[in-house]
Amino acid sequence: MDLKCEIICVGSELLLGDTLNTNSYFLTKSLRDIGVDVYYHTTVGDNFEKIMKTLDVAYGRGMNIVITSGGLGPTDDDITKEASAKYFNKKLILCEDCVRDMENILGIKRDELTNANLKQAYIPYGGKSLKNDVGTAPGIILRDGDKIIINLPGPPLELRHMFNNYVKPYLESITKNKYYSEYIRLYGTSEGDINHLLSDLFSGENPTVAPYVGDDGLFLRLTSRCSCDEEGIEMISKVKDEIYKRIGDFIYAEGDTSIEELLLNQLRDRGFKISFGESCTGGMIASRFIGVSGASEFLDEAFITYSNESKINTLGVNRDTLDSFGAVSRETAMEMARGVLNKTNSNVAISSTGVAGPNKSEGKPVGLVYISVCVGDKTYVKEFRLIGDRNRVRQGATFQALCYAYDILRRT
Amino acid sequence: MDLKCEIICVGSELLLGDTLNTNSYFLTKSLRDIGVDVYYHTTVGDNFEKIMKTLDVAYGRGMNIVITSGGLGPTDDDITKEASAKYFNKKLILCEDCVRDMENILGIKRDELTNANLKQAYIPYGGKSLKNDVGTAPGIILRDGDKIIINLPGPPLELRHMFNNYVKPYLESITKNKYYSEYIRLYGTSEGDINHLLSDLFSGENPTVAPYVGDDGLFLRLTSRCSCDEEGIEMISKVKDEIYKRIGDFIYAEGDTSIEELLLNQLRDRGFKISFGESCTGGMIASRFIGVSGASEFLDEAFITYSNESKINTLGVNRDTLDSFGAVSRETAMEMARGVLNKTNSNVAISSTGVAGPNKSEGKPVGLVYISVCVGDKTYVKEFRLIGDRNRVRQGATFQALCYAYDILRRT
Repeated sequence: MDLKCEIICVGSELLLGDTLNTNSYFLTKSLRDIGVDVYYHTTVGDNFEKIMKTLDVAYGRGMNIVITSGGLGPTDDDITKEASAKYFNKKLILCEDCVRDMENILGIKRDELTNANLKQAYIPYGGKSLKNDVGTAPGIILRDGDKIIINLPGPPLELRHMFNNYVKPYLESITKNKYYSEYIRLYGTSEGDINHLLSDLFSGENPTVAPYVGDDGLFLRLTSRCSCDEEGIEMISKVKDEIYKRIGDFIYAEGDTSIEELLLNQLRDRGFKISFGESCTGGMIASRFIGVSGASEFLDEAFITYSNESKINTLGVNRDTLDSFGAVSRETAMEMARGVLNKTNSNVAISSTGVAGPNKSEGKPVGLVYISVCVGDKTYVKEFRLIGDRNRVRQGATFQALCYAYDILRRT
Repeated sequence: MDLKCEIICVGSELLLGDTLNTNSYFLTKSLRDIGVDVYYHTTVGDNFEKIMKTLDVAYGRGMNIVITSGGLGPTDDDITKEASAKYFNKKLILCEDCVRDMENILGIKRDELTNANLKQAYIPYGGKSLKNDVGTAPGIILRDGDKIIINLPGPPLELRHMFNNYVKPYLESITKNKYYSEYIRLYGTSEGDINHLLSDLFSGENPTVAPYVGDDGLFLRLTSRCSCDEEGIEMISKVKDEIYKRIGDFIYAEGDTSIEELLLNQLRDRGFKISFGESCTGGMIASRFIGVSGASEFLDEAFITYSNESKINTLGVNRDTLDSFGAVSRETAMEMARGVLNKTNSNVAISSTGVAGPNKSEGKPVGLVYISVCVGDKTYVKEFRLIGDRNRVRQGATFQALCYAYDILRRT
């Protein structure tokens, strides 16, 4: 069965400008991954009549599945479920499984549940409840002839859990399509270059290969329509080999693990400690690394050496190097990284120096960044040309620095 | 005239999950500020028939104004303007002003404009063009009887400029309402406490006072419906006085300026330099401060002292202090800040030490953070109890640290 989907987000806070709607985005992206086409998004307030009419508009314009988010809470203005049941002419009945789940998640007995809690445990006759692993409001799937409605809770964490764990398998069972995806993460290249190098692969139909730009730069999504994961892996492996052959140098990882976790795992495997000497990134490399729980085992200290004097005094950079090549140079970056290693008991050091903008520095262009990495007695350095405003350049430099260090560690 | 508004975002990229829809959010928030009620958001693909039907649904459900975003570009799939004109039965005619604007922004002569460019300069008969200060696609306002449509470009920067500069004054002239808003920014308190202390003010009708939680903690928005800014200021000043009387200690600023810019301005006024000694925030304070253009004048260097040894060796914290009170203590925070000042040529130092989580440390709870600030020979220290996961605690500590230092500087 081909699914034509409209996403309806219910919530007056969305129409008052208090909340950015990220649920539509998550659902749309996730539905695309499993081959469900989304035709419309609608946002409507917490109003019974308006919700019912919005459902009517959706099915009236040819949708056969509506996914709602929001309005499943315990208060009186949470009425998405009530309006949906009324639209399909179904009575709400108490769901004993939902009551039990609620007892478990709240850690209390049935007779301690409030009426507001119990309101959440009613589902339309003929509907199927969806367990909420991280909240109290169950979701609902209701199918009536060729029309399906799925009610999901509004809090993004609850919606995401429920979609991934319960809605996705349900939809796959309906479309009879199964999709298997893998992600390949890239650094040190641009979308234009990748389009040029892989354009023929991007036009494939099964598996598909598509480039995306995320917070951490470029990645490729490889998706195959398949009967099981094993077949999906098999189908993807050939095109993956081809991608590695063509652009292997730009690939730093597969999967979903963040670059700072990958780096931390490399350090753990080798019993290494790391430290940083940051100029243009100004603490952002350290801050990202320390964002990983457990970072304290692998980092004792780090230095933000923003002025030339601090590069000299704290990291032992030669004044001659700064005078001859400038602060933004390969040479300075290398001496900074070496200085960090000399000053600490670390095995790996990363340094950054560059022009974050908005103005040129030393006559060098905004976005020019040098990253140096020392591992033991080896020193590596790389030039990057980054695009964007001051903070985009700094974020890009931070990401590239972590990737560069990780790439060196895993290859050595 | 009371406006009932639907926002229609046009763009297949929104329905493929490639792009998060931030335009609806911006428009909704901005419309609320000027008293225009938003009833629905709809997203539709780049399809002529679907766009026309979506307009029909909007006006059909009682809207008298539709604001569209997207689909004003030069390519063939940009058809929002064409579909809107067709819906209102208007011919598209070449707008000479738009051609001139395009020549100016592209820096080329009319005969060098491509047909694709010129396509953007056509507007529906009877419509009014809206200048695009940062791109080539003009916007359009078309009023037909009691129905208004406003077509805005999709790129968020262009849409925001156009809305603020041209759409907002137009809408104010229609509603005959003028709204004046001010913002009061808070730190060191919680939403619950503020609700308790100001609850009676929150129920006022004109001016209204409402609390919001932003990236940088709590703020209050005070909005008055007025005939001119002067009247608005006057109306707000009374309730503002009352707010200062009740919660003045929690107010660190008014307006939209970020805390790091406020702090930088304080340093500039006094000719001061600043430095940091960071433990739990791990570079985040420095990174935020350095995010402000011009920070290099006020910061030479900073230190991330994560381990106890580095607190001792780099900042001169006493081993006895760490042994007696622990790393997460008032005493350690104070010695860290003093150590930063001793080690650098700065006039102001900020230190942070706390438990970011996910696990307790030294038997102290997640979220306990001490911030110390030294200004000259004075040392200040403050305890914070922050809520959230590891990164929320670190972000919160960073924000509170910057606020605390700013608050001390402006009061001394």
